[in-house]
Amino acid sequence: MNDARHGEYSNLLGHEAADELYARFVQTYAVNVAHLDPDAFERHSDTDEDALRAMLDAYEHEMDEPFPQDPARQLMDVLKSMARAWDGTSARFLRQARGAPKEAGLGLVVQAMAPGLGPPESGSGVIQFVTSDRGEAQITGRYLSQSQGRDALADEGAVFLTRDQRGASLEELCPEAFDKLVEYGSMCRRRLREEMQIEFTLDGGELSVLDAVRIQRRPLASVRIAVALAEDGVITKDDALMRISPGLLTELMHRQVDPFASRDILANGVAASPGAATGKLVFSSSEAQAAAAQGVAVILVLRETSSEDIRGMHASVGVLTGRGGMTSHAAMVARGLGLPGVVGASKISLNLRDKTLTAEDGRVFNDGDLVTIDGTTGTLLEGKVPLSEPELDDAFRTLLGWADEVRDIGVRANADTYEEARVARTFEAEGIGLCRTEHMFFDEDRLTLMREMIFAEDSEGRAALLERLVPMQVKDFTDLFRLMDGMPVNIRLFDPPLHEFLPHNRDGLRDLADAMNLPLSRVTRRVEALEEFNPMLGLRGVRLGVTVPEIYEAQATAIFMAAIAASDAGHVVVPEIMIPLVSATREVELVRGRIDAVAAAVRTQTDVKLDYKLGVMVETPRAALIAHDIAEQVSFLSFGTNDLTQMTYGLSRDDAGRFMADYVRQGVFPEDPFHKLDVDGVGELLSLGAERARAAKQDISLSICGEHGGDPESIAFCRAAGIDYVSCSPFRVPVARLAAAQLVVAERNHSK
Amino acid sequence: MNDARHGEYSNLLGHEAADELYARFVQTYAVNVAHLDPDAFERHSDTDEDALRAMLDAYEHEMDEPFPQDPARQLMDVLKSMARAWDGTSARFLRQARGAPKEAGLGLVVQAMAPGLGPPESGSGVIQFVTSDRGEAQITGRYLSQSQGRDALADEGAVFLTRDQRGASLEELCPEAFDKLVEYGSMCRRRLREEMQIEFTLDGGELSVLDAVRIQRRPLASVRIAVALAEDGVITKDDALMRISPGLLTELMHRQVDPFASRDILANGVAASPGAATGKLVFSSSEAQAAAAQGVAVILVLRETSSEDIRGMHASVGVLTGRGGMTSHAAMVARGLGLPGVVGASKISLNLRDKTLTAEDGRVFNDGDLVTIDGTTGTLLEGKVPLSEPELDDAFRTLLGWADEVRDIGVRANADTYEEARVARTFEAEGIGLCRTEHMFFDEDRLTLMREMIFAEDSEGRAALLERLVPMQVKDFTDLFRLMDGMPVNIRLFDPPLHEFLPHNRDGLRDLADAMNLPLSRVTRRVEALEEFNPMLGLRGVRLGVTVPEIYEAQATAIFMAAIAASDAGHVVVPEIMIPLVSATREVELVRGRIDAVAAAVRTQTDVKLDYKLGVMVETPRAALIAHDIAEQVSFLSFGTNDLTQMTYGLSRDDAGRFMADYVRQGVFPEDPFHKLDVDGVGELLSLGAERARAAKQDISLSICGEHGGDPESIAFCRAAGIDYVSCSPFRVPVARLAAAQLVVAERNHSK
Repeated sequence: MNDARHGEYSNLLGHEAADELYARFVQTYAVNVAHLDPDAFERHSDTDEDALRAMLDAYEHEMDEPFPQDPARQLMDVLKSMARAWDGTSARFLRQARGAPKEAGLGLVVQAMAPGLGPPESGSGVIQFVTSDRGEAQITGRYLSQSQGRDALADEGAVFLTRDQRGASLEELCPEAFDKLVEYGSMCRRRLREEMQIEFTLDGGELSVLDAVRIQRRPLASVRIAVALAEDGVITKDDALMRISPGLLTELMHRQVDPFASRDILANGVAASPGAATGKLVFSSSEAQAAAAQGVAVILVLRETSSEDIRGMHASVGVLTGRGGMTSHAAMVARGLGLPGVVGASKISLNLRDKTLTAEDGRVFNDGDLVTIDGTTGTLLEGKVPLSEPELDDAFRTLLGWADEVRDIGVRANADTYEEARVARTFEAEGIGLCRTEHMFFDEDRLTLMREMIFAEDSEGRAALLERLVPMQVKDFTDLFRLMDGMPVNIRLFDPPLHEFLPHNRDGLRDLADAMNLPLSRVTRRVEALEEFNPMLGLRGVRLGVTVPEIYEAQATAIFMAAIAASDAGHVVVPEIMIPLVSATREVELVRGRIDAVAAAVRTQTDVKLDYKLGVMVETPRAALIAHDIAEQVSFLSFGTNDLTQMTYGLSRDDAGRFMADYVRQGVFPEDPFHKLDVDGVGELLSLGAERARAAKQDISLSICGEHGGDPESIAFCRAAGIDYVSCSPFRVPVARLAAAQLVVAERNHSK
Repeated sequence: MNDARHGEYSNLLGHEAADELYARFVQTYAVNVAHLDPDAFERHSDTDEDALRAMLDAYEHEMDEPFPQDPARQLMDVLKSMARAWDGTSARFLRQARGAPKEAGLGLVVQAMAPGLGPPESGSGVIQFVTSDRGEAQITGRYLSQSQGRDALADEGAVFLTRDQRGASLEELCPEAFDKLVEYGSMCRRRLREEMQIEFTLDGGELSVLDAVRIQRRPLASVRIAVALAEDGVITKDDALMRISPGLLTELMHRQVDPFASRDILANGVAASPGAATGKLVFSSSEAQAAAAQGVAVILVLRETSSEDIRGMHASVGVLTGRGGMTSHAAMVARGLGLPGVVGASKISLNLRDKTLTAEDGRVFNDGDLVTIDGTTGTLLEGKVPLSEPELDDAFRTLLGWADEVRDIGVRANADTYEEARVARTFEAEGIGLCRTEHMFFDEDRLTLMREMIFAEDSEGRAALLERLVPMQVKDFTDLFRLMDGMPVNIRLFDPPLHEFLPHNRDGLRDLADAMNLPLSRVTRRVEALEEFNPMLGLRGVRLGVTVPEIYEAQATAIFMAAIAASDAGHVVVPEIMIPLVSATREVELVRGRIDAVAAAVRTQTDVKLDYKLGVMVETPRAALIAHDIAEQVSFLSFGTNDLTQMTYGLSRDDAGRFMADYVRQGVFPEDPFHKLDVDGVGELLSLGAERARAAKQDISLSICGEHGGDPESIAFCRAAGIDYVSCSPFRVPVARLAAAQLVVAERNHSK
């Protein structure tokens, strides 16, 4: 016990405490450096001195030499031991698993011990200069006299750092050290180009910095810190862009369940649309609408949703379905609306007649019970749970502004309604890349006309009924064009099969027969005749456009009239009209002929110059393969990667939910292909289509408008494939803007 | 009127007849050669002489010269006029439309007139030496004294050619001429290498051959004539093969509606499966089976069919459905069974409860009414209609034997059942290229087990139930292997979604709940949970194989046990096991691992050497795109072009029927892609997949097993793409064998 350290500790702390401290050192050394049996170094003695002596004896017994007393020898042994561990199999494996190079070198910092013990003021603490949750400039941390390491964080006796009316503070105890810490903080930030948390020791009033680590941070703080560093010239804007993982932005755009709140989980499902909301349970879209009319916040729970539920979803603050996957109807609409959504909660059971939900643990919840949906984690929680508010602050906008300066691939939003388009504008999308028009036929008054149209005897009858829809749609489109104020709006023509507009149960059929004043048998026959085995692969999209041309003609009329109305109000509008589900060039020729004719008629009728662009949504593998032929007919192609994925895999997104989790878990698919673009299959068709289209028409506009439009990896793929813009849910637009910018910066950094 | 011909006619026929004949000549000449106004050459006069004079005057008035009297001048004018017509726009257009070169030269044969008038024996007739309907060696034709041209065919006074007890004959009237005709016939056959019909004139006992044309023939005669010519060394076997259009063979393999029968058409639909049959109307599969048990021939009429109807279809002599297209379930099964089938008869209406069919014209037919179905033309006919029997004679077999010697692409049959495999053997398929196994789960006793399996709580429960199916399936497979006697049998593992095994209406659910002794609510819930929006794109094929592995394990066990049983009986059996609906390589790895394990277990258990081949059915576009990866896992790939077409187009074959006719009519699709392989889309995927698979594994076996396997053009495409064999419905095997041979011969001829 002539170890210098023991003596030093004895002077500072007295013999007993020094013995205890030194025993701890011997124990650690024996087990971790000399790799002796830990059992032999358990403390059995009552006094610290006995314990220390027992350990020293045990060491000598095992090693046939006394415990090394030379600090240089001790240090060397420790360093060697760490180097060995670094080279061990498990460390190499861990490095690899975390993406670091297997052969990476080891750096060890050896510092003189600053014990933080004894007088004058000694102790240790941590300090940081911005807050971890919100990134605000504020000194936070703890300091504890007579302590070591990170004791200050755990120990009750810690004091504040800055002057605080609640108690003592380092600033008062040792103002010089405090000032120095602030100076070091600023130096760290400048030199390390990052906001660091500093771990320090005061040793007889002498300040030593032990360590500085990047401060932990919530997404909001991440963005603010990166932007502040760049604004202060500490890092470049490029650096700032690269520091934010695009996915983080999502959390900023939605309310979230407070990470510290306790969670009573009722159901687990697919985290289909991020964000959280509290509301009362309802079990039908009509109830959701009724509740919303009275200002009651509701969570809509259904087995699955269809186009008819869009208004109900609009009226809800969150939605949960028992079926479906990431790209089921409910998931897509929820993301579009920015509504928290959980789908495929297959372990709950729903009784829609009795209006009950039986949770996974068997508890039964009724209509009107209060629940919280967490779409970020894919759970339904009991009762009201504390939520944190979204914050779209200046830093957020600044960062995305920088992203826009840098990126070389466009970002538009998929927005069907005025409300969604408004969100798209808020998130600064460069236009609408996909405006689905189905919902314009589902409003109650319009639905009746649609149904009459379906029962009309001939083309004239259909055209006459559809004509009555035109003024309503002119208003829809005019509002949209005005809102988008000259930005491009890509309108997809009518897509769903007609049977989606008809009731399928007995009551619905009877009501319809009454409403239309037709015999029930005739109504039933028509409905049965329209039923399909595989609606996804049936009479929809351009196939309806070709076989029931009146629908597209009415839509084109409405679009053109609206373009003129919006132009009258001073906006320059060149509508983009997109044909869905094309699989043959002739389909495009036929529809183009009819729409050109409508345009000519509108020009003649209004005597207004009118321009528009026609394009095709590439959703079938065949359309991708014949993209060169199609390209010659149109000004743009937009790859609808959702349907393209369905058809390339032969996999319905609505039905995949049941086994997708299993499939991803077993590694059959490395990822859900509806979530991450499948590069090998769908991606090849996309590249191939893009290449062929470009070869046939150099200046054709190419885009993607599936869910993948908002996924960073998929955006990278699209950019490489020569795609001009991606279009995604409004709430993913910021993600896409940042991800697109990062691709450019990464390329620049790589070529440096 | 010093025209030599007029004088000659006067001598032979008397003045009046000569005037009439000459007037006809002048009229024809004026209108067709001199191109004068036909109205001016209408006959207005009462007597022939006046008429003739009027025409000659009219000619002179129009042409400013008398009607040419010089035969040489007349002939030259006629020849010039024909040459002008030959060069005219419409003739060139017609030539082109019929596939002849636009610039083809004109040949004109000028013969001295043999009037066939006057004594001694004069007249005209036609003769042929084999029959047009059956190709049998027999002299047929007509002869009429004092006649010209083909008068003999029309006139009542014609006599027989050969001695006939019913009346006079040429053989008796003028034996020398008759002998000469026989000699000319034989010369024609030898020199023109064809069976010709000879048109002849007897002019004062002198025989002149005016013309010889290829005799008209029915398919049976075509085959017999071609084979006989080749057997006699008149043409080569190659020539014989090229002379038969493969489609003709179909007619020989089925009963047909007598072409001369009168047809009272009740319904028009898609001609889905050729042949004709008469039977009583039934409106359900169970009634069909009941009737068949009593030996009653029935025509099964349904809205559509599903796997459950296969036994009912088996029991019927023909099937008609209101819905569906060329590749709907009903169409495919009907072709597989060689059953006359009409699908998509959308203009009839069916009331399945009252068991009535309302024909297109409104007539109502009931259960038990006699009808005839004509699958060759796609019609349903009232009552019993005369049918002609199929004839698979020696010539048919000889021709196909020659085809087999020549062709370089294999032909197998798609055969699911023992019965179909028997037909495949009859038509000399080289094995089974696709044996679907679903039907092995639908028999009544098996269905119950399947349903219990679906309701089993866990893997052990499922495995135990499936194990009880194994002995039945061992028998199915053993019978098949024995029948195929060492030829390859490619067995596709279970493919359909499980909900196909469950009832969907209220009564069915209640029965099931009773049978399984489960609460109705639980049964209903399970059935609802299994329902799918798009079953075609859902949980089926390898997706079931991965998520419910017990099914494939049971099937593999049955296949291996059967292979051993059949081997014991002296047959060499190397079963080929095919995984359906693959879209990712990992699916194949997982299934392969499990099947290898089953094989190992069976080997251990039986101590028998056991070999098998594993392969993948390429049905998704993605499988074609990653064929190189998949190839490394398997011994064969078989392109399932039906599903591949569905997914490439995004078009369900079951739902396409509703608009396919429209689409083909409007030229949107040049042909129904389920009928003719779509070269641009599906074909590219097929070529691409074949190329990639071959590059990864040179000796991999490549085949196609969709409906296209029996289509000549599609076979040509497959051969060019390096496919090893095609597999098609048994009844299309002869067509495929001949078509494949023609490809080789055509190539030989081309390179000569």
